[in-house]
Amino acid sequence: MTPIGLDPVRYFDSDPAIRRIASELYAGVKELPILSPHGHTDPAWFAENEPFPDPAKLLIIPDHYIFRMLYSQGVSLEKLGINSLDGKFGEPDPEKVWGLFAENYYLFAGTPVANWFDHVLHEIFDIPEALNAKSGNSIYTAIDQALKTPEFLPRNILDRFKIEVIATTDDATHSLAHHQVIRDSDWKGRVIPTFRPDAVTNLAHSDWAQNIHVLGELVGYELTSFPKYISALEQRRAYFKSMGATATDHGVTSPYTNRLSRESANDMYQSALSGKLNPGDDHSFSAHMLMEMARMSTEDGLVMQIHPGVFRNHNSQVFHQYGTDKGADIPIQTEYTHNLYALLNEFGNDTRFNLIIFTLDETNYSRELAPLAGHYPALKLGPAWWFNDSIEGMTRFRQMTTETASIYNTVGFNDDTRALLSIPARHDLSRRVDSNYLAGLVATHRIEIATAREMSQALAYDLAKSAYNL
Amino acid sequence: MTPIGLDPVRYFDSDPAIRRIASELYAGVKELPILSPHGHTDPAWFAENEPFPDPAKLLIIPDHYIFRMLYSQGVSLEKLGINSLDGKFGEPDPEKVWGLFAENYYLFAGTPVANWFDHVLHEIFDIPEALNAKSGNSIYTAIDQALKTPEFLPRNILDRFKIEVIATTDDATHSLAHHQVIRDSDWKGRVIPTFRPDAVTNLAHSDWAQNIHVLGELVGYELTSFPKYISALEQRRAYFKSMGATATDHGVTSPYTNRLSRESANDMYQSALSGKLNPGDDHSFSAHMLMEMARMSTEDGLVMQIHPGVFRNHNSQVFHQYGTDKGADIPIQTEYTHNLYALLNEFGNDTRFNLIIFTLDETNYSRELAPLAGHYPALKLGPAWWFNDSIEGMTRFRQMTTETASIYNTVGFNDDTRALLSIPARHDLSRRVDSNYLAGLVATHRIEIATAREMSQALAYDLAKSAYNL
Amino acid sequence: MTPIGLDPVRYFDSDPAIRRIASELYAGVKELPILSPHGHTDPAWFAENEPFPDPAKLLIIPDHYIFRMLYSQGVSLEKLGINSLDGKFGEPDPEKVWGLFAENYYLFAGTPVANWFDHVLHEIFDIPEALNAKSGNSIYTAIDQALKTPEFLPRNILDRFKIEVIATTDDATHSLAHHQVIRDSDWKGRVIPTFRPDAVTNLAHSDWAQNIHVLGELVGYELTSFPKYISALEQRRAYFKSMGATATDHGVTSPYTNRLSRESANDMYQSALSGKLNPGDDHSFSAHMLMEMARMSTEDGLVMQIHPGVFRNHNSQVFHQYGTDKGADIPIQTEYTHNLYALLNEFGNDTRFNLIIFTLDETNYSRELAPLAGHYPALKLGPAWWFNDSIEGMTRFRQMTTETASIYNTVGFNDDTRALLSIPARHDLSRRVDSNYLAGLVATHRIEIATAREMSQALAYDLAKSAYNL
Repeated sequence: MTPIGLDPVRYFDSDPAIRRIASELYAGVKELPILSPHGHTDPAWFAENEPFPDPAKLLIIPDHYIFRMLYSQGVSLEKLGINSLDGKFGEPDPEKVWGLFAENYYLFAGTPVANWFDHVLHEIFDIPEALNAKSGNSIYTAIDQALKTPEFLPRNILDRFKIEVIATTDDATHSLAHHQVIRDSDWKGRVIPTFRPDAVTNLAHSDWAQNIHVLGELVGYELTSFPKYISALEQRRAYFKSMGATATDHGVTSPYTNRLSRESANDMYQSALSGKLNPGDDHSFSAHMLMEMARMSTEDGLVMQIHPGVFRNHNSQVFHQYGTDKGADIPIQTEYTHNLYALLNEFGNDTRFNLIIFTLDETNYSRELAPLAGHYPALKLGPAWWFNDSIEGMTRFRQMTTETASIYNTVGFNDDTRALLSIPARHDLSRRVDSNYLAGLVATHRIEIATAREMSQALAYDLAKSAYNL
Repeated sequence: MTPIGLDPVRYFDSDPAIRRIASELYAGVKELPILSPHGHTDPAWFAENEPFPDPAKLLIIPDHYIFRMLYSQGVSLEKLGINSLDGKFGEPDPEKVWGLFAENYYLFAGTPVANWFDHVLHEIFDIPEALNAKSGNSIYTAIDQALKTPEFLPRNILDRFKIEVIATTDDATHSLAHHQVIRDSDWKGRVIPTFRPDAVTNLAHSDWAQNIHVLGELVGYELTSFPKYISALEQRRAYFKSMGATATDHGVTSPYTNRLSRESANDMYQSALSGKLNPGDDHSFSAHMLMEMARMSTEDGLVMQIHPGVFRNHNSQVFHQYGTDKGADIPIQTEYTHNLYALLNEFGNDTRFNLIIFTLDETNYSRELAPLAGHYPALKLGPAWWFNDSIEGMTRFRQMTTETASIYNTVGFNDDTRALLSIPARHDLSRRVDSNYLAGLVATHRIEIATAREMSQALAYDLAKSAYNL
Repeated sequence: MTPIGLDPVRYFDSDPAIRRIASELYAGVKELPILSPHGHTDPAWFAENEPFPDPAKLLIIPDHYIFRMLYSQGVSLEKLGINSLDGKFGEPDPEKVWGLFAENYYLFAGTPVANWFDHVLHEIFDIPEALNAKSGNSIYTAIDQALKTPEFLPRNILDRFKIEVIATTDDATHSLAHHQVIRDSDWKGRVIPTFRPDAVTNLAHSDWAQNIHVLGELVGYELTSFPKYISALEQRRAYFKSMGATATDHGVTSPYTNRLSRESANDMYQSALSGKLNPGDDHSFSAHMLMEMARMSTEDGLVMQIHPGVFRNHNSQVFHQYGTDKGADIPIQTEYTHNLYALLNEFGNDTRFNLIIFTLDETNYSRELAPLAGHYPALKLGPAWWFNDSIEGMTRFRQMTTETASIYNTVGFNDDTRALLSIPARHDLSRRVDSNYLAGLVATHRIEIATAREMSQALAYDLAKSAYNL
């Protein structure tokens, strides 16, 4: 048996001076409750509180971080248990899927997936053995048995890992029925929705007209004009807020912001409604809707998050056969200084407004985002996102933003995941990386240890709490 | 009392091998005279040699590095002692301003402001205590008293810190009267002007026509045509040179260079003079004027500096209420390979020409700037600029330029500051960072210690001396 | 005498934990045979197997890495032995050229040229002394004598340094006569061609029409239409393959890919043939030809390499006087996500297709390239290229690609050189840097030592072997 390599000082610098300080800082935050203000878990899990199915369905099949890598190495999505949209592949055999993953687990060496997955295996399922082709079967069995115990019911997982708040991400037209069930239950867990209106603000969304129709039904009047549409959105925000939401989230291709005249906005809206979207209108309308959303945020206090810069479903063959979220979302170059100009000029000095900006284009850390966040009162920086949510990626984020923006214009950690069990793993990794970063500052006499302790607490808990009004 | 954390080995790597070598290299350059070939101190200080006012007016109110951070955290500019353009806030209370800064000083942990400020407190004012809410008052008093002593008169500061040369930055239309007073005095300090013609070369500058009028008055003829305008600029350069200038500086949005026909240049000039600037003309004219300035440099030997890539006064609300330089200048993506093509093709092989290029867009270090500087004889790279003038920023500059351009195509350090007392602090930080960078090369057997000693001397003194013809 | 500073642990981290592991990993790969699947050596060397001329003609005059740096510091190309196109400078004096290089060798401190050159001096020529103005002459003599011995005949160099395969780069119209001579000889060395069709696919190439004519002669019919042109290219690929080629290479300004209609492609081709190239046609045609080349790769199995993003011959004065490859090729910003869309959508899921992408724009490592390579089965990443083929550059490549793409979507090392003797030096440096990178992962408990050993072997040998079908 190869033991799993989870050393207590893992991911800390090998220099003894830094490692010692990092260990001390990490010890101070390791057990803090987890705040998860941005993620994609399914609220149905916590509403229904049913046991999770088998290990493959829980840990492999829904996780595009995992299957994208195997796919890149020539393993078909079908063999990984991912059914095509027409359902022709039928039910996967979870043990075979797991076996294929175990065989290929070496591919993840040096990647965050391995960091998280080893944590899940060892710290959550108490498995002492490294995952590989040989150990795959027995580990499958161990996890499968564990999942049948009450300890692994969704609510118990939140409680056990001290996940104090967890936010889901929900379409503007979602009923939030699961959230209602949770609120009506006697369970004390805090699962809150996040208002994500992309499917009704992106005129180019394939179901936009249909979504507008649903939105109209929800508010009880037909959205025949732009003002009615705006007021419907305001109502939905109020509803989300009443259900616990503290934030909105906006996935846009470009963070372009620009105010349209009421007439132009209405014209574009009407054209889109009548199915005649003019080229470029979706871009202009998106820019205007970010302005509107910012305006609403100043009024209702919901924190505004912008997640721009992704070319979604880049692989059209995979998209047409398997649908969205199949590991083919690819970052693009993104610009912030000009694009956010209109929005920041109108709302950036408003102390009621809280804007959190993310990027997949790291070139913006030191060039545009840290300088913007180090000036505008309304603006803070979201953590290293998605492909950058990794040891090197998080370290670069701190190295390239702290000197200009300070850690106090950042918002702590987001796990941003649909993989429930990886939440404690991801927060643990983030706490380790931040502890190590701060330890480096202490060891090179840039900050005092006492200061580092305060910063450590801020990064692990306080900043998220205040930035997201939790 | 919390002692201030200024360890003698601060900012050196915690690895003992690197730290030992860095300490040795630093010891060899620590006491070298300071060359400050690019900065923004006020020549009136050295002409009049009056005591500085209180600590807040000296150290906080004029320093946008400091107040931008406090502003980003919700502190109003008014409370920081910054008066609005209409003067409605009246005289600030310096002790209150200082107190607010002291309370919020923790925000700067891990930023260069803290590195510099702690140096100023400890090395210049001999204050043994860390700045915080509790110590703020007593530190204020200590500094206030010190400022009243002859030791802190502006000329004595230059002498005391061995600032061998300091360059100011001066509009093309400036009389340089203060520089004349300094030259006429019996003080031996060397304060030299730098020719900065942006306000007469940028057609879109709000006072351009007025500036051209003043320029005409200075040279004694009306600048009714482009050739007259060019010859006025040549005269002013000659005047600056006669007053000690060795360099010019050009703050342009884009480093675009391109030669216009004489007719086009004159047409644009005439249009602008008559108040009818055509869209895009300022961009084309700026590109042409960089060519003209390079041509003049080949003739008069003034070193040409280009500082491009900033969106000035991004926050229009703050700009309209408080004016320029309020911490709202934000970098933008910048391109050099195509933009400098015309200029380098015409003058890049001319050994009489010295061009120093800066960037706020670090993506250019390894991609465009180091390859260009590693080829063209006329081109050298300015140091890590502005937001990148920091421990991590300077380290990245070396790591991303040395391998392709060598340190010998860079020009040593610029402090680029209007904060006089931070000059020794900034040079000290730069010497520490370069010592540490070189120590890393030695410790990994990339260079020999003897080579490192020579490089260290070059970086701390020789390169600036030769690049700026000092 | 100053001894040359080639410590056995050179280039490994100075932290003892990392250094120890790096040394161990390096020991495991140091002696592995060298695979050189992409480079620019001259096949005539191996066909004729004549002694190399003097040290300057072998090591200085043809090496733009070296003379570009000296030129940037004001040394004329003439003095470096580089003749102008009109031949007016006559034969250089090799000892003088060498002396000039020796005097200026300090400029290379901290650059990869010094890493490679010191390796060549010490490990290949057994010279114990550091190169400088003083030692220059005696080192010249020692090398000159060595070059006259059989040990330094080209074939013996390949054998001595265990260069198992070396690929040259050859125009589509090249006869490959030297390769034929090598194949016909009884020498066992494996020197294979690479199909590089730029000069016949780039409509803007100054000799395009002439090259098409030659291509027609080679296949025995006039290339009067686009389909005939395509079929000629297919024939040449088949010929290259029969001569041992396993790959093609495409040097394009932009990696833009896009399919044209047959009619459009033919129209552009005809226009260009008749000498009337329309603006933009070369860009569109290049995009289409990348699609065609990818299609052919799926059919004939040749691995496709794309090397984009260079502004060639940026210095037109140097270009007109001295020709191409004079150190004035400068990288430009490059985009991949949109540009490769068409190609990856048509061929990216095809398991018969192998595409290797390079970049000089490091911003793409983490933003675009690692995410693309971590998804598409056909795509792998070429190593840190050209200016980034350095200690820091290779380290950044690993740090910015591994976490998203894993090392298994990269292809090992390319030396990409025309400097034969630097091949062992460059592979040694790459093996050291990768050993050090992996050692860092082990020392921080990100991977186990056993895993590192496997990865080390993959990076030094296995990945190149499989990626290039060697």
